[in-house]
Amino acid sequence: MNEALNSIEWKNDALVLLDQTTLPNEIRYEENHTIEDVWDSIVVMKVRGAPAIGVAAAYGLYLGVRCHEGDYESFMSLLKAKRDYLAGSRPTAVNLFWAIDRLVQKAVDADTKDIEMLKALLLEEAQLIHKEDEEINRMIGENLLTLLEDGQGFLTHCNAGALATAKYGTATAPFYLAKERGWNFKVYADETRPRLQGSTLTALELQRAGIDVTLITDNMAAMVMSQGKVQAAIVGCDRVAANGDTANKIGTMGVAILAKHFGIPFYVAAPTPTIDLATPTGAEIPIEERDTEEVTNRFGQWSAPKDVQVYNPAFDVTPADLITAIVTEKGIVYAPFEENLKKLFAEDAQHVVGK
Amino acid sequence: MNEALNSIEWKNDALVLLDQTTLPNEIRYEENHTIEDVWDSIVVMKVRGAPAIGVAAAYGLYLGVRCHEGDYESFMSLLKAKRDYLAGSRPTAVNLFWAIDRLVQKAVDADTKDIEMLKALLLEEAQLIHKEDEEINRMIGENLLTLLEDGQGFLTHCNAGALATAKYGTATAPFYLAKERGWNFKVYADETRPRLQGSTLTALELQRAGIDVTLITDNMAAMVMSQGKVQAAIVGCDRVAANGDTANKIGTMGVAILAKHFGIPFYVAAPTPTIDLATPTGAEIPIEERDTEEVTNRFGQWSAPKDVQVYNPAFDVTPADLITAIVTEKGIVYAPFEENLKKLFAEDAQHVVGK
Repeated sequence: MNEALNSIEWKNDALVLLDQTTLPNEIRYEENHTIEDVWDSIVVMKVRGAPAIGVAAAYGLYLGVRCHEGDYESFMSLLKAKRDYLAGSRPTAVNLFWAIDRLVQKAVDADTKDIEMLKALLLEEAQLIHKEDEEINRMIGENLLTLLEDGQGFLTHCNAGALATAKYGTATAPFYLAKERGWNFKVYADETRPRLQGSTLTALELQRAGIDVTLITDNMAAMVMSQGKVQAAIVGCDRVAANGDTANKIGTMGVAILAKHFGIPFYVAAPTPTIDLATPTGAEIPIEERDTEEVTNRFGQWSAPKDVQVYNPAFDVTPADLITAIVTEKGIVYAPFEENLKKLFAEDAQHVVGK
Repeated sequence: MNEALNSIEWKNDALVLLDQTTLPNEIRYEENHTIEDVWDSIVVMKVRGAPAIGVAAAYGLYLGVRCHEGDYESFMSLLKAKRDYLAGSRPTAVNLFWAIDRLVQKAVDADTKDIEMLKALLLEEAQLIHKEDEEINRMIGENLLTLLEDGQGFLTHCNAGALATAKYGTATAPFYLAKERGWNFKVYADETRPRLQGSTLTALELQRAGIDVTLITDNMAAMVMSQGKVQAAIVGCDRVAANGDTANKIGTMGVAILAKHFGIPFYVAAPTPTIDLATPTGAEIPIEERDTEEVTNRFGQWSAPKDVQVYNPAFDVTPADLITAIVTEKGIVYAPFEENLKKLFAEDAQHVVGK
C-alpha cells in the first residue's frame, strides 16, 4: 500500500516527474521528453519545491539541446537561448537559475567543442546536481537535528519535503532522520492555502513514512503553539537574500511572527544554492501573484462570489530578525546574517556560524 | 441582481432562515416550523453568528411550546425542558443561553398564568430580541467608526456580518455605516478556513453592499499588514470572558498576534450579551472540536490523505492583552478589561471606559 513516492527520476532517456497536482488522490508519473514539457511542468507546478525545480530544470535544459545538430557556435547559442527560455518559467526560484547556469558554465568550460561530448557532459552534470541534492538534504537534516530533541513537537508550512527534492526534503529532513533513529515526536502540518501543499503533499509523504503527523489549517498554528504542542517551527525557502530575509510560500512570515510571539525557535532549512548573496535584501525579491481562482475555486466548486476581488501573492518574505537560524548543508547560521552568510561561503567555514 | 440578503425573518408564523451553507452559490430560504428544525439549523450552521443564533433560538423556543395544550405547570415545565434541549445545540454560543433564558424569565415573571397569553408574550419577546439586535449593531458600528478614519484599510476574519445578525453585523457594522457616509476605504476579508465563512459570506455580503472588499487566504493577513494596507483589524466574538479574553472563530488569535506585531489596533465588536462576566477567563471557555472532514474534504473532493490525523478546533481564545478595545453598543472598553467590563454594566456607564 505505502509505496515510496519518487518525485524525480531520469529513466529511459526521459525525465519522469510525479505529477504533484493530482495528489493525494491520484499518483501519476509523467515522462517529460522535451524542454517544453519541463517548462510546462514547472509553470503548472507538477514539479514544485525549489530544489526539485532546480534538478528538473537541469534535465530540462539538457532535453532542450540534446537533439541539436550543428556546429559548436550554434550549439552554444542554442544552449543559452534555451537557458533563457527555462529561466522564464519561475522567476522567484533561484535554484532554477543556479542549476541551468551551472550547465551552461559546464559547457563553456569544457575542453571539447564536440557537441555530442558536450551533450554527454550536460546530462552528467544534471545527474550530479540530482545526486548532490539528496546528500545536501541529508546534511541539512543532520544539522537541524542538533537543534531539536526527542519528545518534541514541530510545525512546518507548505511542502519542503521529499516530494520537493530528490530525497528527505529540506525542512522535513530532520523528521525522516529522527524517525530512522526511533525518536518519539509529532509534526503539525499547515495545510497551506491556497494550493494546499501541506495537506496534499506534506501530510501524505510523512504519513507514508510512518511519521506522527497532524494536519491543521493555517489559522490553527497559533492555537497549537499556544497549547505548548510545538517546540520548533521549521520551513523551507525559495530564496534567502544576503541579509537573511527569506522568500518562501505565502504564510511563512505569519508562522515566523507567531513563533516569535510564543518564544518558539523558527528555523529556515536552506540548501546553499537557495542563498542568493547577489540579492541584498528581501525587498529586491519579486513576488509573483497567481491566478485568483486558486483562492475562489480551488476545489472544482466556487467558494466565493464569482467576481470578487482577490489578492493572491504566491510568496511572502520573512524578515531576517524573525529567523532564529538558517540551517544549510554546510552548517547552521545565526544572526547577524549579512556577515555570517558570507562566512558560510568562505573556504574555512565553521559548522556553526555566529553563535 | 444584487438583492439584499436577509438572514432571519419571522413570516407566516414560521422562522425563515437563509441557508448559509449553500452560499455563495445558491440563495435558499428555509422555513423552520418546529424547535427541532431550529436545533438542526443551528447545529449544521444554516444559521450562524452568535447574535443570529440568539435570535433564532428565541424564535425556536417559542416554536417548541406554541402548540402545547395543558395547564400552567405543564407549560412551564415544557418551556424549561425545551430551553435545555436548545441549549445543547451550540455550547459556546452564550447569546443562545442569554436569549432563551430571557424568554423563560419573561414567562416566569408574567402576570398571567394563561398559556395562550404566555405564548403571545414569548413571541413578542423573541421579536423584541430580533429588533434590539439591529439597533445594537448600529450602535456598535457608530462606536467603532469613532476609532477609524476615511481612507483606511480594514481586515476582518470570519463573518461577524449582516448575515450573522439581524442587520449591519457587528464587526462589519462600521463598513456599512462608512459606506452610507461615502467614506473611501478597503476591506480585506480572511477566507477563514475550514468553513470559509469569509469567502462565502463576508466577501458576498460586502460585495453586494457595494463595499470595496478583497478576499485573501488566512495566511496572507501578515502580508497585507506588512504592506501597510491595514490600519485596523476588526473581528466579532462568540464569548468575551470577564477578564476580556475572547473566544471567536479559529484563527482570530493569530490575527491579533499579527496585528500586535505590526502595531495595528485590534478591535473586538461585542454586543453586551456576548460578554459573560460569569466566565472569569478564557481558560473556562470550552472549545468545540468539529468533524475532521471540514479540513480534509470540505469541497466534495479529498484534499488530504483519507486517514490522516486532523486537529480541528472551531474556536480559539484571544488573550485580553492582545486586544486594543472591546467595542459594544454601550461604548468602547479599554484595558484593564476585568475592571472596565464591570463598569460597562453599571447604570452610570460612560461611553468610553478606561481611556
